Formats: sequence, C-alpha cells, structure tokens
Amino acid sequence: MDQEIIAKILKFRDERDWAQFHNAKDLAIALNIESSELLELFLWKGEADADIEKVKEELADVMIYALLLANKYNIDVHSAIEEKLAKNSQKYPVDKSKGNAKKYNEL
Amino acid sequence: MDQEIIAKILKFRDERDWAQFHNAKDLAIALNIESSELLELFLWKGEADADIEKVKEELADVMIYALLLANKYNIDVHSAIEEKLAKNSQKYPVDKSKGNAKKYNEL
Amino acid sequence: MDQEIIAKILKFRDERDWAQFHNAKDLAIALNIESSELLELFLWKGEADADIEKVKEELADVMIYALLLANKYNIDVHSAIEEKLAKNSQKYPVDKSKGNAKKYNEL
Amino acid sequence: MDQEIIAKILKFRDERDWAQFHNAKDLAIALNIESSELLELFLWKGEADADIEKVKEELADVMIYALLLANKYNIDVHSAIEEKLAKNSQKYPVDKSKGNAKKYNEL
Repeated sequence: MDQEIIAKILKFRDERDWAQFHNAKDLAIALNIESSELLELFLWKGEADADIEKVKEELADVMIYALLLANKYNIDVHSAIEEKLAKNSQKYPVDKSKGNAKKYNEL
Repeated sequence: MDQEIIAKILKFRDERDWAQFHNAKDLAIALNIESSELLELFLWKGEADADIEKVKEELADVMIYALLLANKYNIDVHSAIEEKLAKNSQKYPVDKSKGNAKKYNEL
Repeated sequence: MDQEIIAKILKFRDERDWAQFHNAKDLAIALNIESSELLELFLWKGEADADIEKVKEELADVMIYALLLANKYNIDVHSAIEEKLAKNSQKYPVDKSKGNAKKYNEL
Repeated sequence: MDQEIIAKILKFRDERDWAQFHNAKDLAIALNIESSELLELFLWKGEADADIEKVKEELADVMIYALLLANKYNIDVHSAIEEKLAKNSQKYPVDKSKGNAKKYNEL
C-alpha cells in the first residue's frame, strides 16, 4: 500500500491526538462498524440501486481503519494479501472450486 | 492501491470463475463477515493477547474483499481515502476534536 | 422474555464461571460476531438455499448474547421492544412509509 | 418468546406493507447492521461509559429483526436456545471450560 496515503491517515490522526484511542481492539470494532455502514447501502435493495458515491465513502472509511490496524502491527498489506492468496489456493484448489461457491470445508 | 496486487486478486478470482458470484451486495456481506472474523481475535481479550499472525490473515481477507468492491465500481482507493479525510476534517475540525473521541454529532 | 429461558442461560454461564468475561462491551462484540455467522449462511446464496438447521443454531447464539446483554443492564426485553415500535411509528408514519423501504431520513 | 410481542412486531410490519422486503437474507443483513449500531455505543469507551438508554434501543432493534427471522422460518426461539445450550455443553464441558475463555477448538 502506498506509503503516502498511510502517512496522510496518520497525520490526520495525530493532528487530533487520537492515537490514544486507537488500541487494536477498538480499531477492529471501528472497522466492523464501517463495514456494516457499507453493507447498509445494499439493505432491501439489489446491487443496481446502491448509491455509488456513498459506497465510495464507506469503502474509504473501511480502508482507513484497515490501514490503521495494519500500521499498528507493522503489517505490510501487500505481503499479507499475497500470503493469504497463496493459503487460499490450498484451501480452494482450482479443480475443486472452479465455478463453485462452496466453503472450503464443503468442497 | 498497487495495480499489481489488485491484478493478483482478480487472477485468483478468474482462475476459479468466481466473478459470477461477486455481485456488490454479496461482496459487501463477505467484507462484513471477514471484519467480524478479525474482531473475534479480540473477543474476551485485551489488545496484547491477540494472535498477530491471525490478525494479519484476517486483515488480508478484509482487504481482498474491499479491493474487489473497489474494482467493481472502478473506485480509485487512494482518491477515495483522500476525499474522505478531507470530508472528515470538516466533520472533525482539529480545534473541536483534538484529544476527544466524541462522534461528530456530539462535538 | 420468558424468565425460565433466561435462567437457563445464566445457569450455563455460571456453571462455567464465565460471568467474569461478560462485560457489556465484549457481550456486544460477541453478539456482532454471531450475527455475522448467521449472515454467512446467506453468502453467495438466495434465501431459498440457506440451511434452516444452521439458521436456527446461529439465531439461538444471537438471542443468547442479546439476552445476556439485556440481563446485564436489567433491560426488560418486551418493554424495550414495545418502546422501540412506538418510536419507530413516529419515524415511519404509515402514510409515508407504506410499501416503501426508504430509511426515515429519506422519506 | 411471548406470542404477544411477536404479534405486535408483525402488526407494525403489516401496517406498512413491509413483508415484501423481508426476505431472510435482508433480515439477516438488517440484524447485522443493528448489532453494529449497538456495538458502536461501546466504541473508544469502556463498559461504564455506554449510554444505557441507547443500549436499550439498539438491543430492541436487534431483537425485532431476530424475531422476524425466527418467524420467517417458524423457529420457536425458546426451543432453539435450549437446543443450542445443550449443544454448547458438549463443546464446552464444565471441567474443561470452567473459568476459561478459550474457544472450543482451543480447549
């Protein structure tokens, strides 16, 4: 993830002296809340009816808290994603999971 | 966000012919579920007791679905974050919110 | 809510000496996690494909944590629901909201 | 669960002709959103600082959607809870789990 955008997020936090509230547990709670606010944009609706501008906003909120959590634990997001994709390719081998939405323990 | 990592996520999806399941509503649900799996690592515990390797994995899952949703709507993640930080600086002016965890409508 | 079922939940908790972990914040986190496990039964699927036995189990988990939280704050669930229905009938007057899924601030 | 309170919830729904939106998947999403709104009352705070009146309101919202889902599948909530407590006593035998917050697969 671009160091520049992470720096902007940290600057926003530090201008407001908010690091004191940002223990990992509360960051994980905040991330959960933002993901629910994003999900709410699809409640009672189909995909086509969601407000794209609001999706963009809520997705940004989700990303901000995800990056704050990553920063908290010195997690390199790109490496973490690559490792997870590698792990998932074991859980979901192409031959078993192609065109199939089943969870790995039901394959 | 690095185009390279997004390309890897899309390749993983397309090798398994999973785009057919990835309507935005279900992607938002999946994102919500992964954020809860991340939060579960802190349940009944304090920050210091969370398993960092598992945090890294679940955070990767959250990021993967967030990036798939961004890709779905052609959202540039860096721009979206910058716009949201700008919007948030209106909702949370430094002079009112410094050192203060109150929500904007309680400031 | 039936005092009998609440008593059984509390007995289960006390046999295991778990009240020490059940501060309200962690109970709210647990409730959130269970609601996501319930939601996961509908991921990538339509309503008709959900496993009813699993829905029953996860719904029970949600109810157990909701009742533990209510018990924590001495909340009478029936009264709380009645008050909320009364409040909601103000936010969603029949003439404005009939046959309409809009949120109250969009009516 | 008291038939009377369920009847009031259904009456509220039917006065507004909202059953048409209440497919199980969206009910599960709504339940998830309300549980996040409840959790938000504890964000950046300790248990002692949560607003009890708001906890009562959000808990009522959670219960309303949980009961609508139970009604959708003809689930008797008391039986479901009793069955889950019985199942949980297998996963969490008293001798192994007493005074211990570990998940069943870590006991």
